Amino acid sequence: MTPKKLQVAAAGLGRMGKRHAINFLSPELVAAFTPDPEEMAWAKVNLEPYGVTLYDDYKKMIEQPGLNAVVIGTATSAHAEEAIQAMQKNLHVLCEKPLSTSIPILLKCRQVVEEAKKHPHPKVMCGFSRRFDESYRDAHNKVEHGLIGRPSIIRSQTCDKHDPSGFFVAYAAWSGGVFVDMSVHDIDLTLWFFGDDIQPKSVSAHGIRAVQPELAQYNDYDNAVGIVEFWGGKIAYYYCSRMMAHGQEDTTEIIGTEGKLSVNSNPQSNFVNYYHHGGITREVPAHYYGRFEMAFVQEANEFTESCLDNKPLPVKLSNAVKAVEIGAALQEALVSGKQVRFDETGRRVEGGSKL
Amino acid sequence: MTPKKLQVAAAGLGRMGKRHAINFLSPELVAAFTPDPEEMAWAKVNLEPYGVTLYDDYKKMIEQPGLNAVVIGTATSAHAEEAIQAMQKNLHVLCEKPLSTSIPILLKCRQVVEEAKKHPHPKVMCGFSRRFDESYRDAHNKVEHGLIGRPSIIRSQTCDKHDPSGFFVAYAAWSGGVFVDMSVHDIDLTLWFFGDDIQPKSVSAHGIRAVQPELAQYNDYDNAVGIVEFWGGKIAYYYCSRMMAHGQEDTTEIIGTEGKLSVNSNPQSNFVNYYHHGGITREVPAHYYGRFEMAFVQEANEFTESCLDNKPLPVKLSNAVKAVEIGAALQEALVSGKQVRFDETGRRVEGGSKL
Amino acid sequence: MTPKKLQVAAAGLGRMGKRHAINFLSPELVAAFTPDPEEMAWAKVNLEPYGVTLYDDYKKMIEQPGLNAVVIGTATSAHAEEAIQAMQKNLHVLCEKPLSTSIPILLKCRQVVEEAKKHPHPKVMCGFSRRFDESYRDAHNKVEHGLIGRPSIIRSQTCDKHDPSGFFVAYAAWSGGVFVDMSVHDIDLTLWFFGDDIQPKSVSAHGIRAVQPELAQYNDYDNAVGIVEFWGGKIAYYYCSRMMAHGQEDTTEIIGTEGKLSVNSNPQSNFVNYYHHGGITREVPAHYYGRFEMAFVQEANEFTESCLDNKPLPVKLSNAVKAVEIGAALQEALVSGKQVRFDETGRRVEGGSKL
Amino acid sequence: MTPKKLQVAAAGLGRMGKRHAINFLSPELVAAFTPDPEEMAWAKVNLEPYGVTLYDDYKKMIEQPGLNAVVIGTATSAHAEEAIQAMQKNLHVLCEKPLSTSIPILLKCRQVVEEAKKHPHPKVMCGFSRRFDESYRDAHNKVEHGLIGRPSIIRSQTCDKHDPSGFFVAYAAWSGGVFVDMSVHDIDLTLWFFGDDIQPKSVSAHGIRAVQPELAQYNDYDNAVGIVEFWGGKIAYYYCSRMMAHGQEDTTEIIGTEGKLSVNSNPQSNFVNYYHHGGITREVPAHYYGRFEMAFVQEANEFTESCLDNKPLPVKLSNAVKAVEIGAALQEALVSGKQVRFDETGRRVEGGSKL
Repeated sequence: MTPKKLQVAAAGLGRMGKRHAINFLSPELVAAFTPDPEEMAWAKVNLEPYGVTLYDDYKKMIEQPGLNAVVIGTATSAHAEEAIQAMQKNLHVLCEKPLSTSIPILLKCRQVVEEAKKHPHPKVMCGFSRRFDESYRDAHNKVEHGLIGRPSIIRSQTCDKHDPSGFFVAYAAWSGGVFVDMSVHDIDLTLWFFGDDIQPKSVSAHGIRAVQPELAQYNDYDNAVGIVEFWGGKIAYYYCSRMMAHGQEDTTEIIGTEGKLSVNSNPQSNFVNYYHHGGITREVPAHYYGRFEMAFVQEANEFTESCLDNKPLPVKLSNAVKAVEIGAALQEALVSGKQVRFDETGRRVEGGSKL
Repeated sequence: MTPKKLQVAAAGLGRMGKRHAINFLSPELVAAFTPDPEEMAWAKVNLEPYGVTLYDDYKKMIEQPGLNAVVIGTATSAHAEEAIQAMQKNLHVLCEKPLSTSIPILLKCRQVVEEAKKHPHPKVMCGFSRRFDESYRDAHNKVEHGLIGRPSIIRSQTCDKHDPSGFFVAYAAWSGGVFVDMSVHDIDLTLWFFGDDIQPKSVSAHGIRAVQPELAQYNDYDNAVGIVEFWGGKIAYYYCSRMMAHGQEDTTEIIGTEGKLSVNSNPQSNFVNYYHHGGITREVPAHYYGRFEMAFVQEANEFTESCLDNKPLPVKLSNAVKAVEIGAALQEALVSGKQVRFDETGRRVEGGSKL
Repeated sequence: MTPKKLQVAAAGLGRMGKRHAINFLSPELVAAFTPDPEEMAWAKVNLEPYGVTLYDDYKKMIEQPGLNAVVIGTATSAHAEEAIQAMQKNLHVLCEKPLSTSIPILLKCRQVVEEAKKHPHPKVMCGFSRRFDESYRDAHNKVEHGLIGRPSIIRSQTCDKHDPSGFFVAYAAWSGGVFVDMSVHDIDLTLWFFGDDIQPKSVSAHGIRAVQPELAQYNDYDNAVGIVEFWGGKIAYYYCSRMMAHGQEDTTEIIGTEGKLSVNSNPQSNFVNYYHHGGITREVPAHYYGRFEMAFVQEANEFTESCLDNKPLPVKLSNAVKAVEIGAALQEALVSGKQVRFDETGRRVEGGSKL
Repeated sequence: MTPKKLQVAAAGLGRMGKRHAINFLSPELVAAFTPDPEEMAWAKVNLEPYGVTLYDDYKKMIEQPGLNAVVIGTATSAHAEEAIQAMQKNLHVLCEKPLSTSIPILLKCRQVVEEAKKHPHPKVMCGFSRRFDESYRDAHNKVEHGLIGRPSIIRSQTCDKHDPSGFFVAYAAWSGGVFVDMSVHDIDLTLWFFGDDIQPKSVSAHGIRAVQPELAQYNDYDNAVGIVEFWGGKIAYYYCSRMMAHGQEDTTEIIGTEGKLSVNSNPQSNFVNYYHHGGITREVPAHYYGRFEMAFVQEANEFTESCLDNKPLPVKLSNAVKAVEIGAALQEALVSGKQVRFDETGRRVEGGSKL
C-alpha cells in the first residue's frame, strides 16, 4: 500500500508563494504558476528538477490532470477570482490572507464563500498562519481549559520593521489599508479567542504618518490604533505599525476575568543573549517569516492531511470574510475620523448616540 | 552651621497618607492631621514619639508656627480646597494626584493654579510618582538624548490587582471614573514624553464591566481602553483595569521614529525565579507601592530640596490640571459613546467630521 | 535532470532512532534495521508504506544494493562496531553521540577514526546536535566575529528532567557515566568555541546522589560538577544533573575578554507567559527533543548535502573521540576523587604537584 | 517618651565607608574616623554639619562619651583589631566583610570571635549584605517553606565589571585572593542555604589570568572556578571574575531535590528595555552598590534595631569566620593546584585517596 499523496499546485511564486512552494515540495507539489519571468526563472532551478510542471497561465495549470489542490499566493487582488476558479474545478484551496481587501471587494469575499457552499467536498481555507503557531495554540488551549476565566480584553499588534525602500507606499495603493492588510491577523485571533460568533458593536480608530507622509495619497497610515467593542462585553484593541527599528514584533495579550496570557511579550530571534559594555542584547526576527516559519510548515501539513483524509479544516472560511469585514470597519473609522457602529445582528447603525 | 530643615505637616493618614508621613518623618515632619480616629490612634504610636504634633482640624494644623510645607494625602475631594488654604498661609504644597476629579471640579483645579500664581514663593506640586521612578527617568533621559528619534506613539496602562472586596465600587462614587483616577498617571507620562504643550485633537474610549457589574450605578467600568490623538501627529493609547489576577502591572511603551523604549514589559517583584514542575515563575508586586516605593521617597526628597533651596520643582502644576482635563475627556467619551474633539487651541469642537 | 537522492538506512529505531528515521524519511530513507520486535512493529506502520525495506540484521541491511549512507542510533555499545562495518562497505555514516563510552572502549573510538582514514571518500560524522542549533550557531558566529574578544571561560550544563521511573539507574550500567553520557555535549561545545586543538591540563570533579542512591552500584551520580583547565589559559566548567523538576535545561555561557554570550539562560518552550494569582509562569521543554528538534532536522539535511555534493562535514570525527576522552577524564576524577592531569602533548601526568 | 537613638561612629570613609556613614547619618551617626585627608575633607562637608564629630585617631573616637556602636569600613587588614578594641569598650560592632583575609590571619578572626564571647551584651556582626537583600530573602524563605525539597547544589558567582585601571592588581597584594575577597559572599550564602553547620569535605579550584597577567606576582587570578563538596551530599560551585564587560553580575542558583531557585539570572539595572536596530537591550548595574543599595540600608536598620532592642542579630559571627576559612581553602587549592580535604570534624586530611 502506497501512502496517499496530495497533488498540489502553487499559484504565485513571490515572497510568500516561494515559501509555500518549498513547504509543499516534498512530496506533494506537482505544478506551479507564475506570470512573472523572474519568478519563473527561480522555479526552473528550484522546482522543475523535482518534477514540478511550470505554467504562466493559471487556468491551464488548474486543468492539469490528477491535480487535487491549489495554494494561492498571488497578488491579493487575484485571490478571490482564482479561488473561485479552482473550486469550480473541484480543487481544494489554501488561500493566503486576506481573501480580498477593499470594502466593495467584500462582495467578492462573500462570493467565494457562496461558491464554496456549492462544492461541499473541496476544502477551502484562508491561511491565517498564527492559528498554526505553537505558541498561539498553547495559549488557545489554556483559554479553552479555563485558565484565565472568561476572555474579556484582547490587545494585539502587528508591527513590521521599517522598510525605507518605499515598497509599502506603493503597496498601499491596493493593500486595502493597514487594518485590512496587517491587523486582519489580530482580528482573526480575536475571533478565535472570543468565538467566531462575536459581533462588533462600535469601532474607533486613529492613525498617523510618522515616517511615510506619502501614504496620504492613498489615505493610509504608517501607525494606527483601533478599538473594537463587541456585543456582550468584550473589547479588542489593535496597534499596527511599519516603523519598528528592531524587527518584527507581533504581540498578543488575552485578558480574562481570572488571568492573562501573553504571546511574544519578549520578542527574540533565538536563545542567545549578548553581554557587552552597553548592557545585554537579544536580537529580534527581521520579518514575520523568522517568527512564523514553523507555522507555515504546520499549515501546509494540516491542509494536506485535511484534504487527504477528508477531515474538517482548522479554520472556517466564513471567519476569513468576517475578519476582513471588521478590518474594513476599522479602516473606515480611521479614514473618516468617525466611529462605526453595528447593531446586534451586524447591521450598520448611523448616528452618534450610545447603543 | 546646622543644615536647614523643612518643617512639614502631613494632612490625611490613610493608605497613602501614612506612607508620606513616614517618608517625611526624618528629619522634617512636625505636624499631622487626620479626621479619622483609627488613623489618629496609629499616629499616636508612630508619629507623636518623634515630636510630631497631631491635629483633627486641618485649619488649626496649618497655623502651627514655623511650619513650611504641607503634604496633602486626604480624600481626593478635599485636595483642591486644602491646597488653596495652605497656599494662603504661604506654605509649600505637595498634593497627591489627582488635584481634583470630575469635570465641574476642573474649575477647582484651575482655581488652585490661579491661587498658586498669587504666591510665587511657595512651591506647589501635584505628586505624579512615576516621574520620580528611576526607570521612567532613565527612559525619559534616553528620549531626550534622541535614542528613539521623534516619540510618536505611547502605549501606557495602569492595571490593578482585582480586589473582590467591593472597595472600588464604593470608591467609584467619587473617584471621577477610571480614566481620571487611574489613567491620569499614563496621561501625565504622555505629557512628559510628548511635551507639556501638546494639544489633544480627538478622543475615543470604550469600556466593559467584566467583574463588577455594580459599577453601572456610577457610570463607571472595570476595564477601559482609550485613544488620544494629538495635534501634530502623535497618538497615545491607554488601558486601565482593576481585574488583574497577578498583581499590579503598569507598563509604558514610547515608540519613536527610530526606536522604542519599554518600561516594565516584564513585571517582577524581585530577582527570584522559581523553577518547578509547572515551569518557571516570577512574582509581581501586588500593589503600586511595591512597584513605586522608592519613587515616593525620591519625591519627598526632591520636594524638600526644592523648597529649602528655592529650586524649580520637577513637575509643573499646570500639567496636573491638563492631565485631569484629558482624563475627563476620555471619561466623557467612554460614558457617552461619542468621540470628543478639540481644535488646535484646545476648544471643544462638535460634530462628526474629520478635522 | 532528476535531483540526486541519497539512499539512507536507519539502524536502531528507539527513542532517538525513530526521530532520525522520520527526519530522513522524505525523500531519502530506503532501509531500516532494528533487533527489537516493538520497534519493528512501529516501522511496519510508519516506514514500510513509504518504500523502506526493514531488516532485523544489521549486516544484511548494509548490503542492500544502492545504499549510500547509514544513520546509527542503536545502543551506544554498538555504535563503534556498526560504524566500522558500514565504512568497510564504503557507506557514509552519521552516528549518534557518543561514539563509545567507557575508557577501555576509547580504543574502539580510535579504531573508528583509523578505519575512517582508510576510506577517504565516505563521510563519517558523530552527531552532536547542538552544533546544528540556530542559537549555538549564532553564538559561534558572534565569537568568530570577535564580539567577545578571546573566549576564556565556558560554563555549560546538561540538565534533564527528573525521571522517577528508574530508567536512568539501569541505563547507568553501560552509559559510561554522567560526564560521558551527558556532558559530552558540553565538551563538544567547548572544543567548538575554544578550538579543536585545545589540550586539557587538569581535571577536577565532584558528584552527589541526591535522588537516586542506587546509582552507587554503578559508581555513577545524579548530579556532578567538573572543571577542565586547558593549557593556554582557558577553563570550562560543567554541571550535569538528572534531577530538574521543571524540564530540560541546557545552558551555555562563553565568557571572553571583552564580552559574554549566553545560550538559553531563559529556558522556555514557546512565547507564552501565563499570568495568574501566583505570578507569571513560562513553561520549559520536558526533553532535549523539545529544545533541539530543528537541530536534528538541520543535521540530517547537512549530512545529506555533504554526502551528495562531497562537501566537508561540519564536525570532524576526531573531535568526537576527543570529547569522549575528556568526558572519561572527568568521570575518572569524579569516581576516584583525584585530579587528573595531562602535559601539553596530552600525556597523563601523575602526582599532585602544580604543573 | 522620646524614641531611643543609637549613637553610632563610622570608622573608615572610603568607597564603602562613605555609604555606611550616609546610611546611618539620620538619626544615629555621632562620630566618624578616617586617617585619610581626602576622606576627612569630604566628612567636613557631608557629616560635620549634621553634628558628627570627626577623628583621625580610631582609639580616641571609640572613647567618645555616649557612643553605642561602631561601623567598621576601614582597610580589611584593620578590621579584626578595630573590632576587638571596640568590643573591649563594650561597643556594638558592624564590620564589613571579610573579618580578615589570609590564612595566618584566620587566627585573628577566631580571636575576634573569642573576644565577642567575653562581651555577651554588645552585638557583633560581620556585614554580608546579600543576607539583607530582598531577593535573597525571598529565595531563602521559599527554601524554608520546602518549595524546592532538599537543597543539594548551589551555583553562585561574584563577577565584577572589568576595571582597566590596575586598581585590582595593587589590591591583590593584601586582599587575600579572589576566593576570599569575592567568593566569600557566595560561601556565606551557601552556609545560609545549606545550614551553618555544614562541613566541607573536599575542595578543588582552577584559575586563569586572562586580562591581568600582573596578578601572577601576588599568586592571584582574574577568573577562578572552584568546587566545594560538603559532607552529607551537597555541592557548591563558584565562579569569580573581574573581567565582565557589561557590569556587575552576581547570580545564585539553589537546586533542590524538587525544584530550583535562581536569583538574578536576568541582570538588569531597572525596568527599561531599549529597542533599536541591533535588537533589544537592557542595562546592568556597573557596581555591586547598584545591585545591593537597599540591602545596605536594610542592614543598617536591622543592626540598629537589634542593638537598641537587644534582639538577636540576623547573622552569626562564627559564620563569618567559617566563610573565610572555606574561602582560604579554595584559594589554597587554586594556588597549589591540589585538592584540599577535610574530615567530618573539619580537620585537614592529607593524601589523595577518596574519603
